[in-house]
Amino acid sequence: MSAREESSTPGAIRIIDVIRRKRDGHELSRAEIAYLVRGYTRGEIPDYQVSAWLMATFWHGLTRAETAALTDAMLHSGKILDLSEFAAAKVDKHSSGGVGDNTSLILAPLAAAGGLIVPMISGRALGHTGGTLDKLESIPGLRVDLSLARFRKVLRACGCSMIGQTPEIAPADRKFYSLRDVTGTVESPYLICASIMSKKLAEGLDALVLDVKTGSGSFMKTEKDAACLAELLVETSQRMGKKTVALITDMDQPLGLRIGNSLEVAECVDVLQGRGPADLRDLSLELAAWMFHLGGRAKTVPEGRDLADRMIRSGQALEKLCKMVSLQGGDPAAIEDPRRLPRARHRSVIASVRSGYVSAIQCEDIGTACGVVGGGRETKEDRIDPAVGIVLHKKVGDRVSAGEPLCTLHYNSASRAAASKKLIERSFQLADAPPPPRPLVHRVVGQPNAQGTC
Amino acid sequence: MSAREESSTPGAIRIIDVIRRKRDGHELSRAEIAYLVRGYTRGEIPDYQVSAWLMATFWHGLTRAETAALTDAMLHSGKILDLSEFAAAKVDKHSSGGVGDNTSLILAPLAAAGGLIVPMISGRALGHTGGTLDKLESIPGLRVDLSLARFRKVLRACGCSMIGQTPEIAPADRKFYSLRDVTGTVESPYLICASIMSKKLAEGLDALVLDVKTGSGSFMKTEKDAACLAELLVETSQRMGKKTVALITDMDQPLGLRIGNSLEVAECVDVLQGRGPADLRDLSLELAAWMFHLGGRAKTVPEGRDLADRMIRSGQALEKLCKMVSLQGGDPAAIEDPRRLPRARHRSVIASVRSGYVSAIQCEDIGTACGVVGGGRETKEDRIDPAVGIVLHKKVGDRVSAGEPLCTLHYNSASRAAASKKLIERSFQLADAPPPPRPLVHRVVGQPNAQGTC
Repeated sequence: MSAREESSTPGAIRIIDVIRRKRDGHELSRAEIAYLVRGYTRGEIPDYQVSAWLMATFWHGLTRAETAALTDAMLHSGKILDLSEFAAAKVDKHSSGGVGDNTSLILAPLAAAGGLIVPMISGRALGHTGGTLDKLESIPGLRVDLSLARFRKVLRACGCSMIGQTPEIAPADRKFYSLRDVTGTVESPYLICASIMSKKLAEGLDALVLDVKTGSGSFMKTEKDAACLAELLVETSQRMGKKTVALITDMDQPLGLRIGNSLEVAECVDVLQGRGPADLRDLSLELAAWMFHLGGRAKTVPEGRDLADRMIRSGQALEKLCKMVSLQGGDPAAIEDPRRLPRARHRSVIASVRSGYVSAIQCEDIGTACGVVGGGRETKEDRIDPAVGIVLHKKVGDRVSAGEPLCTLHYNSASRAAASKKLIERSFQLADAPPPPRPLVHRVVGQPNAQGTC
Repeated sequence: MSAREESSTPGAIRIIDVIRRKRDGHELSRAEIAYLVRGYTRGEIPDYQVSAWLMATFWHGLTRAETAALTDAMLHSGKILDLSEFAAAKVDKHSSGGVGDNTSLILAPLAAAGGLIVPMISGRALGHTGGTLDKLESIPGLRVDLSLARFRKVLRACGCSMIGQTPEIAPADRKFYSLRDVTGTVESPYLICASIMSKKLAEGLDALVLDVKTGSGSFMKTEKDAACLAELLVETSQRMGKKTVALITDMDQPLGLRIGNSLEVAECVDVLQGRGPADLRDLSLELAAWMFHLGGRAKTVPEGRDLADRMIRSGQALEKLCKMVSLQGGDPAAIEDPRRLPRARHRSVIASVRSGYVSAIQCEDIGTACGVVGGGRETKEDRIDPAVGIVLHKKVGDRVSAGEPLCTLHYNSASRAAASKKLIERSFQLADAPPPPRPLVHRVVGQPNAQGTC
């Protein structure tokens, strides 16, 4: 049956036609997508029509041109930073989210120490994954809700700053994201791409390094899904004139050894002091190397890695972190001595029931266990406990004896700890032989001659 | 990325899960569908979540069990008539909508004359198709907005009554239909089925004859689409314990010779007087025959046809119509002498530009042309002009000479007439030879051993 609808000017775009065309699998024009985003952001198109469009888009996907048009329309719904006052290249890194993934706190000061400008606008914990803003806020006094003017001042003073999305940045994305959240349309790679890129491109960047996670702790469980998202992100960013690569990196077990907000900050300080777990250190150096390479500070990626390594060994990267923390109202003493960060009152060791090799750590469960003990949110209104979390003593491939500690839970509430422990216990899998090793970086997307997967 | 959502009682149905499960192609339980319909009707589930569900349903369709559950939930959102006071069988006919399709006005009095109770709740003009209520309202004084109590009184007095949907009947359907109308989710056979059946089953029927149209003037352009909808309707109705058949009938050209509200009423009177165009008369007799057969008034369909024929020849069917019109406040003199019905002030003949055979009449265009001249609505608020319309002088297969009239437009506004004529002129196609004839009844669905098509 044909729908009745309001009369309208001939030739004018009508939302009902935009919905129907996407429903029928047609490619929308740039003008149709701009009309949708503008109309929704201004409140002229109601939620219920946009949600029908979102579900039709979840169904049929978007072409590259449509994805770029959506990104562009959401980007232009707000302010785009003009950082042309800085002669140095403006480079950021974005991660698709994982467990124990705290490279942002290492990379921002590290890249700034190496001469780049890093205007990083980050997010909060989502589902089982941690959020950079929540980790930063475990540093006493530190503010992430800076105005854009203050953000610019911090960038001038130390080359890097890390803040949350401000109301001026991509307001359309905030509206679309809230609606996707309640209409079962979050997990579309095309919508994810437009959401990420509309915020990142507002930072006024020259180059962007994407860290797309794959494995049991990521949102893209298979490498194919991760590669699909990576290609979408890279192509959309490159269309907008930004130098871009995506590294598809492993998230089949937590990154590093600590999960939880202040625990992860302390681990970042370890890395910036030239210590810390090998996987976190290696991935940070690799991502920094690409940032230096794309930002013109290193001719090759190996040269970029050398520069990053020097910035850590010289202490300049750690110094940058202290300076940034101080400029954003935080206490640099907590960086110099991480024992000053919030600490949980109780610890509980989880030991292995048998001998063997750790064959897998179900990573989403570990992330959820950290959330359950207070390190994440169940509702948007929940307050995060910055002190709690999990410290791993064994990682995949490690030998373990019966009774030997697998990890230590840091907690403040016994009842939350009990629920968390159950998840942790079932997340460790043991076997008689170690599993074949998985690479830390599975693939780099965005270099010439790369093969497309979606 | 996983969505954040409100915490909830374990095991309780959550709308976000219902949306996601349908999005992922799973079959919903009866409880999930009942929760959705109840929550939406009560205003507890917002439009924007239901529209996402509607689009996911448009995408994946519904199983027979889901369709029945949706129909049942919408049916039980309102009152179900209890007509057990009538010993005779309660039988109705429903048409999927067409152009010049005025069999309802013939069938209700005809079936009542033959001893059935016909509690007919009808609709209005939709898109290019006419609406029974609009046609009835061209009879001076006649009311279709009777209360259910008054409806019952008319049924007692003459065995048939024809009214519009009351607020007590399937209120959920009204809400769902309004939302489908603005979210591009009207044309789903599963949603169409639930919408139709939730209203028809509220009539307290024993049996139902469905007239599913196929061809250029119907909503189901192909016979396959029509068969799919017919099967859905029949199976859903039979599941609910109603004797049901569907006739797939031709709507590739207008039915009968007149299109327009009072013009069609006059044509119905012709048929009830034993005259009228052959196709309209034949289809009315066939549908009445099935109503008599399913309602137990005739052992076979041919016997039912004989009964219908007798009721026309004896004048009893026309008498019933006069009685019903009178009981619903209308002027029976307008039935006895249709020249008393509203008449347009102007007539304009559309003649053929060449000689040959009428090879096709693009039926949707003819329906739209009748709407444009004032016989339909462009917006819900428009008033219908009951007097205007089109009288055909040639139908498909007829021989025509250059300059010979194809049809006459009855109009009150010259500017509307000009727009309408353009549509009519392009809708007539001529050729050197007549086209192969199309059957009036393509198929009957719902008899034992019928083959499924969807």
